[in-house]
Amino acid sequence: MQIPVRLGPRSYSIVVEPGGLAKLGDHLRTLGLGSRTMVVSDAAIRARYGVVVAESLRTAGFAVTEVDIPAGEDAKTLDVAARCWDAFVEAGLDRTSTIVALGGGAVGDLAGFAAATYMRGMNFVQVPTTVLAQVDASIGGKTAIDHPRAKNLVGAFHQPRLVLVDPLTAITLPERDFRSGLAEIVKHGIVLDAAYFEDLERSTAPLLAREPGTLERIIGGSCRLKASVIERDPEEQSELRFALNYGHTIGHALEAATAYGRWTHGEAVSLGIVAEAHLARRIGLAGGDTVERQERLLAAVGLPTRATDVDATAVLDATRRDKKARDGKIPFVLAPAIGSFRVVYDVRSDDVRAALAVLAP
Amino acid sequence: MQIPVRLGPRSYSIVVEPGGLAKLGDHLRTLGLGSRTMVVSDAAIRARYGVVVAESLRTAGFAVTEVDIPAGEDAKTLDVAARCWDAFVEAGLDRTSTIVALGGGAVGDLAGFAAATYMRGMNFVQVPTTVLAQVDASIGGKTAIDHPRAKNLVGAFHQPRLVLVDPLTAITLPERDFRSGLAEIVKHGIVLDAAYFEDLERSTAPLLAREPGTLERIIGGSCRLKASVIERDPEEQSELRFALNYGHTIGHALEAATAYGRWTHGEAVSLGIVAEAHLARRIGLAGGDTVERQERLLAAVGLPTRATDVDATAVLDATRRDKKARDGKIPFVLAPAIGSFRVVYDVRSDDVRAALAVLAP
Repeated sequence: MQIPVRLGPRSYSIVVEPGGLAKLGDHLRTLGLGSRTMVVSDAAIRARYGVVVAESLRTAGFAVTEVDIPAGEDAKTLDVAARCWDAFVEAGLDRTSTIVALGGGAVGDLAGFAAATYMRGMNFVQVPTTVLAQVDASIGGKTAIDHPRAKNLVGAFHQPRLVLVDPLTAITLPERDFRSGLAEIVKHGIVLDAAYFEDLERSTAPLLAREPGTLERIIGGSCRLKASVIERDPEEQSELRFALNYGHTIGHALEAATAYGRWTHGEAVSLGIVAEAHLARRIGLAGGDTVERQERLLAAVGLPTRATDVDATAVLDATRRDKKARDGKIPFVLAPAIGSFRVVYDVRSDDVRAALAVLAP
Repeated sequence: MQIPVRLGPRSYSIVVEPGGLAKLGDHLRTLGLGSRTMVVSDAAIRARYGVVVAESLRTAGFAVTEVDIPAGEDAKTLDVAARCWDAFVEAGLDRTSTIVALGGGAVGDLAGFAAATYMRGMNFVQVPTTVLAQVDASIGGKTAIDHPRAKNLVGAFHQPRLVLVDPLTAITLPERDFRSGLAEIVKHGIVLDAAYFEDLERSTAPLLAREPGTLERIIGGSCRLKASVIERDPEEQSELRFALNYGHTIGHALEAATAYGRWTHGEAVSLGIVAEAHLARRIGLAGGDTVERQERLLAAVGLPTRATDVDATAVLDATRRDKKARDGKIPFVLAPAIGSFRVVYDVRSDDVRAALAVLAP
């Protein structure tokens, strides 16, 4: 499956291809990129996929260098970015060279930020190996590192030249990571496509069994939905791209209020979706059935819909540092019905508190 | 004088206005920017212009915060950028807030990089107070910090929302800084506009006397020339923008080979122009008269055209780390005649050595 992302001179494709890792070099050669590449990854991912990727690049005629970064969010620091820049200089990379981010969302965010800012922007290719990164983080050109005060506070928009998704990598993910990625998939259905949401409702069993055909269809479908938003709003200039933030205003705040230690990102987004669904009902925007279908699907794919001991004040506080705030106002994306969304700016704190209270089991 | 820079949704104006510093707030209000601003500057510039700028912003209804950074190139480090991000968070800035860079090129580069990467890009306004920054660094959206191995190695393209040039600030510049800025002005004439070059040849006396009308006309003219290039090639995608690099391939290398301690940037560019002019003659691209007119004008405005003890090997080495290198090849911008340029990729090292030898007095 080849999904075009039409962005004028910055256009690129998302290639969803079982076994695609071994084809990376061929795809890069087709794009006519410069002769030097550097694969950024963490040690565990490199142990699993590093050889096949490097072989594929070398066979296609590229020089390959590698840099290892810490696993997970620990990679997203200024120090690690600086280490990447050092490695890029050392390897003699220039703007025609290509950084390949091989791994989960954090690898893509960090490597993308380093590529976006090295010589003011060089070629960058995403090879996401988690569901979360495949359907969300790797698409759309958002790159970032963290700041002690807020995640992803420092970053850049830098569109990749290619996103290569091998859905078979999802098969070996730990159960919790796999399910975490499904939260973004469910989100795409809720705000963007009722038919896709219904497919998810029907497909929970083969999806949870990680049946290859189902993985390819569902992951590819989610990539396509995200791509359609990116095409129309590549740099969050309009409200359209806010749609992708559904469940995230409260989800991010739940993560921040618990120092990112309690839930995975997907689990927090699942809880955020539940709270924001109830918020929509509370302010009269959505009916009860719309709320229940969301909760039911999240629960069916094994994501949390309830949580004990949520500190509403801390969560509210964290929402105020949202990057989408516009001169102090926080936009909430809400779903009036499955397959649609609306951005609401004047949500009262009391209503957010009431929505958070729903999370108590 | 209002010079439009037409870049679609990223369009902006360069306003060249004697006494313009006091009008900054009015201009920002016209643009409809968010209510919060932060003025980034160094202590000496702030002592001279800080009050008038802050007053202008406050009078126009903006909240004003300030952050001081080191003077000159010392500002362009990752540590200083991190301090800016901290200050932005502390002041509660979001994407609608505006960073105002008040000062020379280094302030603009650093503040621009911090603004480009904070929340993946916030509003940014350039208020350049040196000739060098007014006619060159502040226009075109290049932002950067330095790397131990190369200047401006890390950065981003981030177009400002406004460039406000007050040519009267040139009157109080130290003599060496003022003349240094003239190198970029001469460069614009050589590669882009023969009539402008002739105006410079006729105007050296009032220009060096810093006659206000001449300053406004010459500085404004140079801004217009640079803007015309930026409009057609905002992110160095084609050879067009390379034109602005005339004198810089060797100029940058001269600076790098002497650890940035011997010449100001403008002085190095002046020497770079002389060497590249001779290089063009040597490879049969330009006639002797074209070379002599360039040297004569540079000398007439008090810029160096000769230098003792140039280490040709070190300079050649430094050219190889040029950000404009494309997969190992270094593009030289050469001037076949006044008012025109050509990009040449296959320049031989021997010819560069011979051109450098011309610099010996």
